[in-house]
Amino acid sequence: MGGVVVQNIARAPQEIIDGLGQCGVATVHEAQGRKGLLASYMRPIYGGARLAASAVTISAPPGDNWMVHVAIEQAQAGDILVLAPTSPCEDGYFGDLLATSLLARGGRGLIIDAGVRDVRDLTQMQFPVWSKAIFAQGTVKETLGSVNVPIVCAGELVNPGDIMVADDDGVCVVRREEAEAVLAKARDREAKEEDKRQRLAAGELGLDIYDMRGRLADKGLKYV
Amino acid sequence: MGGVVVQNIARAPQEIIDGLGQCGVATVHEAQGRKGLLASYMRPIYGGARLAASAVTISAPPGDNWMVHVAIEQAQAGDILVLAPTSPCEDGYFGDLLATSLLARGGRGLIIDAGVRDVRDLTQMQFPVWSKAIFAQGTVKETLGSVNVPIVCAGELVNPGDIMVADDDGVCVVRREEAEAVLAKARDREAKEEDKRQRLAAGELGLDIYDMRGRLADKGLKYV
Amino acid sequence: MGGVVVQNIARAPQEIIDGLGQCGVATVHEAQGRKGLLASYMRPIYGGARLAASAVTISAPPGDNWMVHVAIEQAQAGDILVLAPTSPCEDGYFGDLLATSLLARGGRGLIIDAGVRDVRDLTQMQFPVWSKAIFAQGTVKETLGSVNVPIVCAGELVNPGDIMVADDDGVCVVRREEAEAVLAKARDREAKEEDKRQRLAAGELGLDIYDMRGRLADKGLKYV
Amino acid sequence: MGGVVVQNIARAPQEIIDGLGQCGVATVHEAQGRKGLLASYMRPIYGGARLAASAVTISAPPGDNWMVHVAIEQAQAGDILVLAPTSPCEDGYFGDLLATSLLARGGRGLIIDAGVRDVRDLTQMQFPVWSKAIFAQGTVKETLGSVNVPIVCAGELVNPGDIMVADDDGVCVVRREEAEAVLAKARDREAKEEDKRQRLAAGELGLDIYDMRGRLADKGLKYV
Amino acid sequence: MGGVVVQNIARAPQEIIDGLGQCGVATVHEAQGRKGLLASYMRPIYGGARLAASAVTISAPPGDNWMVHVAIEQAQAGDILVLAPTSPCEDGYFGDLLATSLLARGGRGLIIDAGVRDVRDLTQMQFPVWSKAIFAQGTVKETLGSVNVPIVCAGELVNPGDIMVADDDGVCVVRREEAEAVLAKARDREAKEEDKRQRLAAGELGLDIYDMRGRLADKGLKYV
Amino acid sequence: MGGVVVQNIARAPQEIIDGLGQCGVATVHEAQGRKGLLASYMRPIYGGARLAASAVTISAPPGDNWMVHVAIEQAQAGDILVLAPTSPCEDGYFGDLLATSLLARGGRGLIIDAGVRDVRDLTQMQFPVWSKAIFAQGTVKETLGSVNVPIVCAGELVNPGDIMVADDDGVCVVRREEAEAVLAKARDREAKEEDKRQRLAAGELGLDIYDMRGRLADKGLKYV
Repeated sequence: MGGVVVQNIARAPQEIIDGLGQCGVATVHEAQGRKGLLASYMRPIYGGARLAASAVTISAPPGDNWMVHVAIEQAQAGDILVLAPTSPCEDGYFGDLLATSLLARGGRGLIIDAGVRDVRDLTQMQFPVWSKAIFAQGTVKETLGSVNVPIVCAGELVNPGDIMVADDDGVCVVRREEAEAVLAKARDREAKEEDKRQRLAAGELGLDIYDMRGRLADKGLKYV
Repeated sequence: MGGVVVQNIARAPQEIIDGLGQCGVATVHEAQGRKGLLASYMRPIYGGARLAASAVTISAPPGDNWMVHVAIEQAQAGDILVLAPTSPCEDGYFGDLLATSLLARGGRGLIIDAGVRDVRDLTQMQFPVWSKAIFAQGTVKETLGSVNVPIVCAGELVNPGDIMVADDDGVCVVRREEAEAVLAKARDREAKEEDKRQRLAAGELGLDIYDMRGRLADKGLKYV
Repeated sequence: MGGVVVQNIARAPQEIIDGLGQCGVATVHEAQGRKGLLASYMRPIYGGARLAASAVTISAPPGDNWMVHVAIEQAQAGDILVLAPTSPCEDGYFGDLLATSLLARGGRGLIIDAGVRDVRDLTQMQFPVWSKAIFAQGTVKETLGSVNVPIVCAGELVNPGDIMVADDDGVCVVRREEAEAVLAKARDREAKEEDKRQRLAAGELGLDIYDMRGRLADKGLKYV
Repeated sequence: MGGVVVQNIARAPQEIIDGLGQCGVATVHEAQGRKGLLASYMRPIYGGARLAASAVTISAPPGDNWMVHVAIEQAQAGDILVLAPTSPCEDGYFGDLLATSLLARGGRGLIIDAGVRDVRDLTQMQFPVWSKAIFAQGTVKETLGSVNVPIVCAGELVNPGDIMVADDDGVCVVRREEAEAVLAKARDREAKEEDKRQRLAAGELGLDIYDMRGRLADKGLKYV
Repeated sequence: MGGVVVQNIARAPQEIIDGLGQCGVATVHEAQGRKGLLASYMRPIYGGARLAASAVTISAPPGDNWMVHVAIEQAQAGDILVLAPTSPCEDGYFGDLLATSLLARGGRGLIIDAGVRDVRDLTQMQFPVWSKAIFAQGTVKETLGSVNVPIVCAGELVNPGDIMVADDDGVCVVRREEAEAVLAKARDREAKEEDKRQRLAAGELGLDIYDMRGRLADKGLKYV
Repeated sequence: MGGVVVQNIARAPQEIIDGLGQCGVATVHEAQGRKGLLASYMRPIYGGARLAASAVTISAPPGDNWMVHVAIEQAQAGDILVLAPTSPCEDGYFGDLLATSLLARGGRGLIIDAGVRDVRDLTQMQFPVWSKAIFAQGTVKETLGSVNVPIVCAGELVNPGDIMVADDDGVCVVRREEAEAVLAKARDREAKEEDKRQRLAAGELGLDIYDMRGRLADKGLKYV
């Protein structure tokens, strides 16, 4: 029922994290075998933001943002807060004051399976948030939750220290232990995509580039 | 079953209304005790709009926008139309022609628990709308509704003459009789927030500013 | 169960299609008798796009984008892909590589009752998409669907060669055989709207322009 | 922000309340001019229950059922609890122990714009509940709400002492002051319906009984 | 914009229709190549009903049930009404009086992409309904729709005279011209299923009955 | 990307599992500290079913039920299948033939974050299912998934061998390692509840039994 703060969590090397951020969500998701995507209702509060960061996780009661204050103390430079309520909730757990505080600690953003508010200010600050809702509904500070425990956020398991990759396509979580391997595959994928992009731009068809015609015919596709 | 137009409604003083608009939704919502927020599905058609205005309310049948024409005649400079259908509906009750008409009367925008259309034109006109849906679906003019009666819009009671505060965070209603007191509290809140923002920006933690550590320990929070 | 590609479809004359695009969704929808609107959950991935184009239709299994490759070969200059899954699905069937390929064939965009990804790249390319979801979830290439058969997309029947009109208000389908007549009515409607806009902008009321007061009184509207 | 319990509320005469219960939701809703219906997501936990009762209202924080205990003390024989959370919530505020307590005080059921649990036991007890969700999620007892204040429940305003009519069709609220008049109209409606039911059962058409053919023709209906 | 009633529609032979009803939705859906299923939100108002019947289609404005009266006159013995609103709507278009009237004409039930009411009475009458919602919300009789025109109902195209197969699994539409062939395939499928059921009941595995092990191994399935 | 079947999983002792089943979802959920509840959209296909069983987990592609056949071979007497699609899906992965097969192996039911079909037959067989949807939509057998790997089902992490407790209130997962301790707490809770039930049934108030009056007054509750 909450009440635990894990103070020391392992994080992936910064250059691995940064590399994943450059690849973007769709590529990373494919590179790690089409897993790790948070639900499609997680949307950025403004377009164009993209990042990768280590997760400081928060398990919070519905309508209670007390643990956000606790979590900010645990955040290091380059971290992102990832909050999941213990029961579905759209309340606005987070606004510009908390963002100011997190930025002062070197934190980089917020991923929240609930609501956020002060989005005008957050946008002006270019503080990136991916959330389930934008909702000014206030919260209380009465019940404990936990910080840096495994959580399920928007349908995906997130461990503290996992890498969150987020952009306009949504959010993907990469296990810390797999991060280096995923990055290698993602870069490999990007290299191959560049070649394909040029061939496709020149008018060559995917049907030919990927050699699909035979297999389509085998399955019985008929042209009429 | 509708059919009533109340012609004379009381409005709050303009400087009170303007003051609330400057404070914004999240602050006003907190200042009045965390009440009055419309549902989070009410979203602006474009980012950055913010205002406060007196409500001219419309209770309209589903798929019938006849009463909007009636309501525009009742609008005064500084008013906003607030429409709730008598049964859930996403049809496009309102477009650029009606906006043109309302602007000509001095009206300032629309809050509608249903759909709106011509959003490209409305955006170019910078006519602010908070709606449940963007939907081009046309409506008829066959059945009466009412104007300037109490309505429930997106889950909140709105009386004619109440003040609607709206921005990127959503929409909040303030009772006309409470407006002055709410504004005072909102301004007080803003003043205190500014001090906290500076301390937080300097790296001080909310845990310390709000003196939370003792109470967290009393509740049993454990650091491991 | 899929497996058919219709290679020769009829298309409306380009000037008719272009004319419909200039009128926009709300006007075209009204002009053809308030029919043909796709569900309101079909939203553009970026604001301001507007077009009309001939539909190349795709019926695809859930989570399987194989048929998109097949469809691109069938697309001609000025066409738009319209995809409906055979069972509800939000997966990302389409990204920047497929867009590159379609553009190389002269295609103009995508309407998809499912998900799309790489929206940052698609936005930079100014490749217009109206979709049910933005979701990076990958797809497979295992099961046949069909191309250029009638489909139901977001609640509306779309035949290959029908004209899709799309803008910030959503998407409307116009039957190919009715396109010329609809365009004539849409233009007529626009002309009349311009006159009304000017009268409304001058402060005249819709109640008077449309002569509504008598009929409202007959229905029993009471002013109190 | 809550914290008030209104102890003395007016109630309608019991025979009026019972009469409304016999008429049922659809008839009462029509009789009072098609108003007062709670949202269609309010569903009974078992089929066949029907009642009318005076509302003891509860405004409760999300995920906090403390006020239910407070409300039960305020309930009299024949009352029903009506709970609306101050922010959307599906948690299970109520189970078989609270039902046992309410029954001991003479209370008759629960209408809750949130969740309920122990539905197997509640069904065996034939304790009627109309709720937004069935969800075992537990709640806390930390934050005050209010009892017997006006609330908006599932989209409708409910005042303490208003009459809640509920059956398999959903829930309708009748203002206490209008209850007698609504009952008279509902009974009148029932009498007329009986006559129509017999004519319709004999094969006569509504088109003829309600004399619709002329008006349909005037509107332009064409038989082909 | 409605206003048409098609009086003479073709229907499939009654024995074909009855045969489809005996096979049930899941079998018929498979037999016709996994097409024709209405959306999963279409649910029966009581469990255990199952039927097949010829569709008399209704295209109705939102919140307006006038065309139901018109449609009942067009219904013959064995028909079912299938109603789609022209814009999404959950209002209660239909109750026990209309059911009484339809039964008197030999009609067999209702499939409605909107709401129904009086469900207690309809259940007692054993009048089967598959609907999107149960909602007592009343409707008006002001605007024309059409009867016996093609409609899209819950995501599927339904032509007048098509066969609707419905049971606890939902609703499936079968094209009138394909009904005989679909029935033959459905019966063939049932025969084969019976054999498989016996083998599965005896403990034989689907992996063996359907000879899946080799193909699974080819795809790379690993047992660890 | 799937393709793994874990053949040997640990299970809790049967008497622990049975004990949890007798306690029911709401009690077990409270006993383990208000965690482990699957989302409220997971509903039983018929009322009154209740059980506890060891999870055999399935991670399956959207619209592909191949892995169900693989999983049935892994099921032992007393197990329940728990399926999560890798992307949201409501297709009918499971029907009466698969249920027949699972029963022949001693399996006890299905928990599926997707659709099920043949619910009439499953109900007659008294085969319990908790699902997100009832939908006849067919699936294919083309793409590998995995069996007995950790999955997130309806928002909760489920490991193979965890105990699923399910009844009319929904579904709760209990970690295998915690099962014995949770059972002890659940039984303790039940004993205490029985005492409270008797006191409440006798008319004593929760306000007094739980000694709430002082704390309510401290928080500022006012009776007016």
